Amino acid sequence: MKFNNRNIYVSSKSKIGRSVKIGDNSAIYDNVEIGDNSIICNDTVLGEPLHAYYHATNYVNPTTIIGPDSLVRSHSIIYAGCTLGAGFHSGHRVTIRENTIIGIHCSIGTLSDIQGNAKIGDYCRLHSNVHLSQKSVLGDFVFMYPYSVLTNDPHPPSEDIKGGLIGDYTQVGVHAVVLPGIRVGENCLIGANSVVNKNIEDFSLAMGDPIKVVMDIRKYIVLGKGKPYPWMSRFDRGMPWEGMGYDNWILQGAKK
Amino acid sequence: MKFNNRNIYVSSKSKIGRSVKIGDNSAIYDNVEIGDNSIICNDTVLGEPLHAYYHATNYVNPTTIIGPDSLVRSHSIIYAGCTLGAGFHSGHRVTIRENTIIGIHCSIGTLSDIQGNAKIGDYCRLHSNVHLSQKSVLGDFVFMYPYSVLTNDPHPPSEDIKGGLIGDYTQVGVHAVVLPGIRVGENCLIGANSVVNKNIEDFSLAMGDPIKVVMDIRKYIVLGKGKPYPWMSRFDRGMPWEGMGYDNWILQGAKK
Amino acid sequence: MKFNNRNIYVSSKSKIGRSVKIGDNSAIYDNVEIGDNSIICNDTVLGEPLHAYYHATNYVNPTTIIGPDSLVRSHSIIYAGCTLGAGFHSGHRVTIRENTIIGIHCSIGTLSDIQGNAKIGDYCRLHSNVHLSQKSVLGDFVFMYPYSVLTNDPHPPSEDIKGGLIGDYTQVGVHAVVLPGIRVGENCLIGANSVVNKNIEDFSLAMGDPIKVVMDIRKYIVLGKGKPYPWMSRFDRGMPWEGMGYDNWILQGAKK
Repeated sequence: MKFNNRNIYVSSKSKIGRSVKIGDNSAIYDNVEIGDNSIICNDTVLGEPLHAYYHATNYVNPTTIIGPDSLVRSHSIIYAGCTLGAGFHSGHRVTIRENTIIGIHCSIGTLSDIQGNAKIGDYCRLHSNVHLSQKSVLGDFVFMYPYSVLTNDPHPPSEDIKGGLIGDYTQVGVHAVVLPGIRVGENCLIGANSVVNKNIEDFSLAMGDPIKVVMDIRKYIVLGKGKPYPWMSRFDRGMPWEGMGYDNWILQGAKK
Repeated sequence: MKFNNRNIYVSSKSKIGRSVKIGDNSAIYDNVEIGDNSIICNDTVLGEPLHAYYHATNYVNPTTIIGPDSLVRSHSIIYAGCTLGAGFHSGHRVTIRENTIIGIHCSIGTLSDIQGNAKIGDYCRLHSNVHLSQKSVLGDFVFMYPYSVLTNDPHPPSEDIKGGLIGDYTQVGVHAVVLPGIRVGENCLIGANSVVNKNIEDFSLAMGDPIKVVMDIRKYIVLGKGKPYPWMSRFDRGMPWEGMGYDNWILQGAKK
Repeated sequence: MKFNNRNIYVSSKSKIGRSVKIGDNSAIYDNVEIGDNSIICNDTVLGEPLHAYYHATNYVNPTTIIGPDSLVRSHSIIYAGCTLGAGFHSGHRVTIRENTIIGIHCSIGTLSDIQGNAKIGDYCRLHSNVHLSQKSVLGDFVFMYPYSVLTNDPHPPSEDIKGGLIGDYTQVGVHAVVLPGIRVGENCLIGANSVVNKNIEDFSLAMGDPIKVVMDIRKYIVLGKGKPYPWMSRFDRGMPWEGMGYDNWILQGAKK
């Protein structure tokens, strides 16, 4: 259905791996390298040129790397200069601006908007409509939920931007806003609609506007369910410990 | 202007009703059924295949039904397995994922994102950029405003999702978040930026983070305007009581 | 890369200025006038017809004006009846509905959604995913940040809409909501996640839900940085005082 080789533009300066599928109406611009077995759906743009392209006479498109076994869903736009690790998955209409580095096995949801010069670790999942401003940094296994935002300008408008940082395994709730330059630790849960205006230590359950740390998340008990956090022992879909358990994976020395 | 029969893909396994218009650059995939007199604008995708399509060798696209007299605006994506009732209207760039059931005469605004396996009643209006997570349920005549969200995961990440429910005639304000498994009653007004963390009874005017019930909405008086709620006696555009009045429509036994 | 004259629709009733570039897969409908040297990227729609088009037999598309030296990025949709001033820049997937008037040198970010009949002054910058409801009015040099919203319906649903107004030089933070008919003065800073439920005087630093005025912004001191507001003396990128300083520009009588 989707792959009819209809109205596709593929630059002669791109490198397309083996068994790659490219959907109808898609454009692959200069210096894009797509890893083996990746699926690029219809109406996508890979290697979107930077602003300089529109005016420079000798513009050269920076190299864009899409890892193997990736699935880029339709209408997504990935700028030149990005490097996306193996097993990347996107929703629809994702925008990832220039020089963003994304680790392996990440998933970026429909309508999410990565503003460029951001760094995302391995196995992160951004659900729909997450906004990362420039210089945002996410660790590994970070989950962000719809309309959550990392901001970067303490005194807008300015040129003095400071990206936020989210530690490994942390969950950032729906509609949460992380203020510029703030560091959220590892293994935190940031509640829906929070405004994170101060640094948050590892293992915090925090919520509110302004944010308040409610408790050490390791002490959080849910009636009939025990202690849901850290979450890694009870959730493994798509994680590197899938089928073996987090503790065994750690014992193998795979992480830390 | 919009209908030039240019660069259109229509599967031979689809059924297109009488007097249907299909805009340029659109794709109608397998097993889509479009009702009579519907208008499918340019750059839309109907019957978007499910994830299994990318890997299964014997994938069959589930049936997608677009009711008669529908208007799907440009760049929208409707997944296979959805059933949309008569008179469906969408804005631009709407995403409706698989197995979503939508009643008659609903309108889903620009950029709204329905995550699938959701159920929406009749005559609902989702304005721009509403997010419904999986298993969300809306009654009839529900209005949701921009950036309002129904969430579904009480302890993210988990597989134990619980959709929210919004009762008939209820209004959900801009930026409101309904937490997982919460039930909002009928005829409520949920204020802007609320976080709904507990069930809300019928006829509540409620707002805040966390939500507080301010009063019975039937007692809410606006200076010089009387009692604006329930709203059905003062608003009828596009409603089944248009031109006859809500009370007369009820007397006809059309809806309790 | 982007301009291959592939799958483009240009109405014979449009007027295309000198040295205009039009990207692949774009559609320019009836009565669109594009100023000289403008760049219309791929997959855009200019002069999107109004609702009446789908049913009227004698529909005439209102005139759409795109000023000279504009850059409309891909997948944007600009409705018929809009007038966009010189030097207009958009991000991707912007929607601007009918009869919106935008001044010179404005920038509207990716996924922003202008609902029509809005008025935006000169040199405004809307970052990603800003939502302006109908009848919204922005002064000059207004900056709005992601997921900020101007609403317009005091008692939803109704036909009695009242647009909000934002004064010159004001900054509206991430996730801020301005309630219907509210006036925010000049030179204000509205904090992240605020709900603006009352009029705000000029030079206010205000935040919270509901909004509270914290101080006169001219008295706001940041350790080691002095007084960041008003911001015009410390930020000039893209502003008409770039390279000369705001005070000199004012002395020239350019503004007020």
